[in-house]
Amino acid sequence: MIRMNTDSLIAYTLHLADNSLILGQRNAEWCGHGPILEQDIAITNISLDLIGQARSFYQYAAQQINQLTNNTSSPVTEDSLAYLRTEREFKNCLLVEQPNGDWAQTVLRQFFFSGYQYFLYQQLQQSKDETLAAIAEKSLKEVTYHLRWSGEWVVRLGDGTDESHNRMLKAIDELWSYTGELFMPVWYEKEMDIQLIEIKKNWDTKVNAVFTEASLTPPSGVGGAVFMQTGGKTGIHTEHLGFILSDLQYLQRTYPGSEW
Amino acid sequence: MIRMNTDSLIAYTLHLADNSLILGQRNAEWCGHGPILEQDIAITNISLDLIGQARSFYQYAAQQINQLTNNTSSPVTEDSLAYLRTEREFKNCLLVEQPNGDWAQTVLRQFFFSGYQYFLYQQLQQSKDETLAAIAEKSLKEVTYHLRWSGEWVVRLGDGTDESHNRMLKAIDELWSYTGELFMPVWYEKEMDIQLIEIKKNWDTKVNAVFTEASLTPPSGVGGAVFMQTGGKTGIHTEHLGFILSDLQYLQRTYPGSEW
Repeated sequence: MIRMNTDSLIAYTLHLADNSLILGQRNAEWCGHGPILEQDIAITNISLDLIGQARSFYQYAAQQINQLTNNTSSPVTEDSLAYLRTEREFKNCLLVEQPNGDWAQTVLRQFFFSGYQYFLYQQLQQSKDETLAAIAEKSLKEVTYHLRWSGEWVVRLGDGTDESHNRMLKAIDELWSYTGELFMPVWYEKEMDIQLIEIKKNWDTKVNAVFTEASLTPPSGVGGAVFMQTGGKTGIHTEHLGFILSDLQYLQRTYPGSEW
Repeated sequence: MIRMNTDSLIAYTLHLADNSLILGQRNAEWCGHGPILEQDIAITNISLDLIGQARSFYQYAAQQINQLTNNTSSPVTEDSLAYLRTEREFKNCLLVEQPNGDWAQTVLRQFFFSGYQYFLYQQLQQSKDETLAAIAEKSLKEVTYHLRWSGEWVVRLGDGTDESHNRMLKAIDELWSYTGELFMPVWYEKEMDIQLIEIKKNWDTKVNAVFTEASLTPPSGVGGAVFMQTGGKTGIHTEHLGFILSDLQYLQRTYPGSEW
């Protein structure tokens, strides 16, 4: 197997893990608060899928880090990577840390992200890195479902009542400027065998198709010249991530080393 | 000076500190989000007053604890009491940890609490414990203003538009069941030279007067037989306190011993 640059591979693996962990944590806030029981369970299951993916990526990142640093006395673990890194060390995109808002905003965020993940994992399962390829292949079934589920909700709300349509419009306003970052490569992505331009093309097509069915229009058209927020993938986050980590990490910070 | 039972005095001092700290933290969530700039500043100033009171009480509690335990090597401090105790150790009443909700809920919570604090501090400034008496006396000017400010808001919203009146009704529904705990003495209050029954009588009169002016009615009348929540004063809290502490304590938990 041809090895990629180790630094980049570790950073990229953490980026994939952080994306899934943070969106999983966000969706989990709905647990017990969903609009109806079936959908409460659906969004919570998506959280579990995402956190499961995060675990696989964190385990792989930990293995690489421990090999690189030759650290056998106190090796990093999936838990230390999730619970003991600070805000600036998190590499998730800004989209996944945005607030849940209402149900429309949550399902639209999921649709944007699952669309991205779907086409990304399709590429990743061909990666020269066999572990990433295996995790992507295993996760693709889950992501396929997430994309279908969230896309159906976008259509249901966008093509629903005036109220639900307006809520989707508001959700698009809130979230659109966080979609650009998904496709702007940062240093560690440039070393990976992924084609973000291809992913963006497929994502644009998918979003356009679902939006058309939902009677929705992306701001200035998909690919239009809307200002896009960036920074998350290199650790510069919105105000929200700090609060997410406060909740997520509180137990390990308060009782260091505690186990289930 | 006649000393009260030390355990009770420490617990009571922490209770007073926790009440002020948690409500101060809650109100501070409004900072930058108030309905108009003047009121944004007002509620933030109330936070600062409350956190200032909390500091005085924590300093006094720390002094007592260090004397009792004869701990000179790593003494507890106002900071360790605020930042390193866990949820079950916090002794604040449930009222102050309730969510901000809308502006109506925030000002009603403040009115209920400031009314309680106003009559309590009037008694406390006569306390045999000279430190508590001094803090109460010093704080009473602030609390007098908090009570007037929040009472005026209750009248303005209760006697305002249909919308604002309905929001006050909803706020009363949300908060009323947390007012009873203020007047039900727990073990450490029983040792203190305060008369909760007197405070309740004065509080009832004040709430009735303001509610009448605001065209509002307490559920089943003040002193009515509504079920009242209890537990906070002995460490059994609602789900909200854990999230408050996650935010409040994150920095010290993540960077132990860090200083400004």
